Amino acid sequence: MSATNTQVRLAARPEGMPKESDWEIVEEPLATPREGEFLVRISHLSLDPAMRGWMNAGASYIEPVQIGAVMRAGAVGEVVESRHHGFAVGEHVTGALGVQEYALSDGAGVSRVDPSLAPLPTYLGALGMTGMTAYFGLLDVGGAQEGDTVVVSGAAGAVGSVAGQIAKIKGCAVVGIAGGGSKCAWITDELGFDAAIDYKAQNVAAALREHAPKGIDVYFDNVGGEILDAALTRLARGARIVICGAISQYNATGAVKGPANYLALLVARASMTGMVIFDYVQRFPEAARELAGWLADGRLISREEVVDGGVRAFPLTLLRLFAGENTGKLVLRVD
Amino acid sequence: MSATNTQVRLAARPEGMPKESDWEIVEEPLATPREGEFLVRISHLSLDPAMRGWMNAGASYIEPVQIGAVMRAGAVGEVVESRHHGFAVGEHVTGALGVQEYALSDGAGVSRVDPSLAPLPTYLGALGMTGMTAYFGLLDVGGAQEGDTVVVSGAAGAVGSVAGQIAKIKGCAVVGIAGGGSKCAWITDELGFDAAIDYKAQNVAAALREHAPKGIDVYFDNVGGEILDAALTRLARGARIVICGAISQYNATGAVKGPANYLALLVARASMTGMVIFDYVQRFPEAARELAGWLADGRLISREEVVDGGVRAFPLTLLRLFAGENTGKLVLRVD
Repeated sequence: MSATNTQVRLAARPEGMPKESDWEIVEEPLATPREGEFLVRISHLSLDPAMRGWMNAGASYIEPVQIGAVMRAGAVGEVVESRHHGFAVGEHVTGALGVQEYALSDGAGVSRVDPSLAPLPTYLGALGMTGMTAYFGLLDVGGAQEGDTVVVSGAAGAVGSVAGQIAKIKGCAVVGIAGGGSKCAWITDELGFDAAIDYKAQNVAAALREHAPKGIDVYFDNVGGEILDAALTRLARGARIVICGAISQYNATGAVKGPANYLALLVARASMTGMVIFDYVQRFPEAARELAGWLADGRLISREEVVDGGVRAFPLTLLRLFAGENTGKLVLRVD
Repeated sequence: MSATNTQVRLAARPEGMPKESDWEIVEEPLATPREGEFLVRISHLSLDPAMRGWMNAGASYIEPVQIGAVMRAGAVGEVVESRHHGFAVGEHVTGALGVQEYALSDGAGVSRVDPSLAPLPTYLGALGMTGMTAYFGLLDVGGAQEGDTVVVSGAAGAVGSVAGQIAKIKGCAVVGIAGGGSKCAWITDELGFDAAIDYKAQNVAAALREHAPKGIDVYFDNVGGEILDAALTRLARGARIVICGAISQYNATGAVKGPANYLALLVARASMTGMVIFDYVQRFPEAARELAGWLADGRLISREEVVDGGVRAFPLTLLRLFAGENTGKLVLRVD
């Protein structure tokens, strides 16, 4: 075992798109667990659009990462030392362990995972927060039901690709919006979406008119901006818009672009509702059981794009998310 | 009885703020009811911000008024001729009878009112669509409950003034946002709102921080624009925003100003829901009973600002709404 722990700490609050110098790489001596603690060697880190928000100073649904603190990140890893009765050496765990090679934990917010049921990165994808967000966002916040027309933006991304597949499993007609021909081909050919709209090549509002002729019942939004505005023009009566994220706006240096077409909510008697997945922690087991069953059946595909390079590669890998370069869940391999 | 019927017909679709020439005044011979019809002499017309939307060509929650057609308006009046078994001469009725002195009707959408229970203009105010909108918007769409902090924009207007009073009756803490000191004084001193914010003189976000220190549970929005954005900054967890209207945006010549702070919905796990009062027609009797009871008790004040001048005064009177000149319900006296 290495005697040092390489960490990525927040060095500055970015303005607009983050740059490498917004973090600093620190090596510090490896800590030793005290009574009630255990040490995790992290194998994979989850890279999420929400990380951009955590870097801001302002109050949000979660505390900002403090300057000088280890960058917050979901992770999976193996317990390598333990003085905690609930976690034994050799067990695999997941939790918000941070962008570092090793994490000391008292077990709060950490749960065991079984690498014999699914590869470890899948616990950051369909079996992790990603899958939970897609599941509760679509079914609970969005109330998607059999026969609904569901439209998902960021449809080739981590949450979007799972949300669209769950909608198909539940008997919905599903249209995905993604950037580029290969992403669009993936969601239709591999994931079984009924249609894909390439927002880089097509007029989204016109394509929605074609692919959602009866209007949109559930719009699961990961992107905000112009695509949200296009979706608003095609709402069915009583539509539900799930505000899961707004990746197009996270690096805005000016004001966020608000949805100019929001009065469509009135015309359609529709709702737009924000969600934060942490509210569903008590119900994670029910979602995990169902998601794991679909994965085992082959009805649900969890695709993780695993990037090698260790924690030092974190800044540049995160920027790939905002450039829209990943397909499926972006994961950084640490060990 | 006059032998002619003066009508106000739509002559042009306005760009931005309507002007007098967007309507034409027409005198036509008074029609005679056929079997199954009756003739109403209109006494008062309802002037509503929604009228601006009805003048546009685009699809909305209701058909646009066609060029050359009588301008749509809610009205009250008296049956002066009848060949309809459900409506007798001398009875008073309300319905969307249009901006004209006399209306021929087959009874569709028309209901009887009792002038001994309340003055006729009140059937366009608290006992009409105005009251219904306030009632179902606040209680059904907004789900306001005892102990909630309710904020109402356009609070000295027709719907807002009733919505805020209903919220007080239901045990909420109520903050109204209105333009100018006399409107603010009216809603606090006469209507019993807990606080008023003068958006022309105060910073709305700062004033909401003071008057809604625990955050907003229900925001009943009649105005849109910057005030909606300010309210979004002060949402309590699980807040409900009712999109009833957006008078600040109806005459926009460019794009509507979308709510730049809409991602507050995510942080607060809040919802924004549009409403159209026509959906509640089946439930109007329950609301009418309750509203009439509160009016009789003196717990609810319905203020109508009745303008004289007949149908010819309609264009200029409507513009008073968009200039924010009315307090309470703006009504045009026709007879």
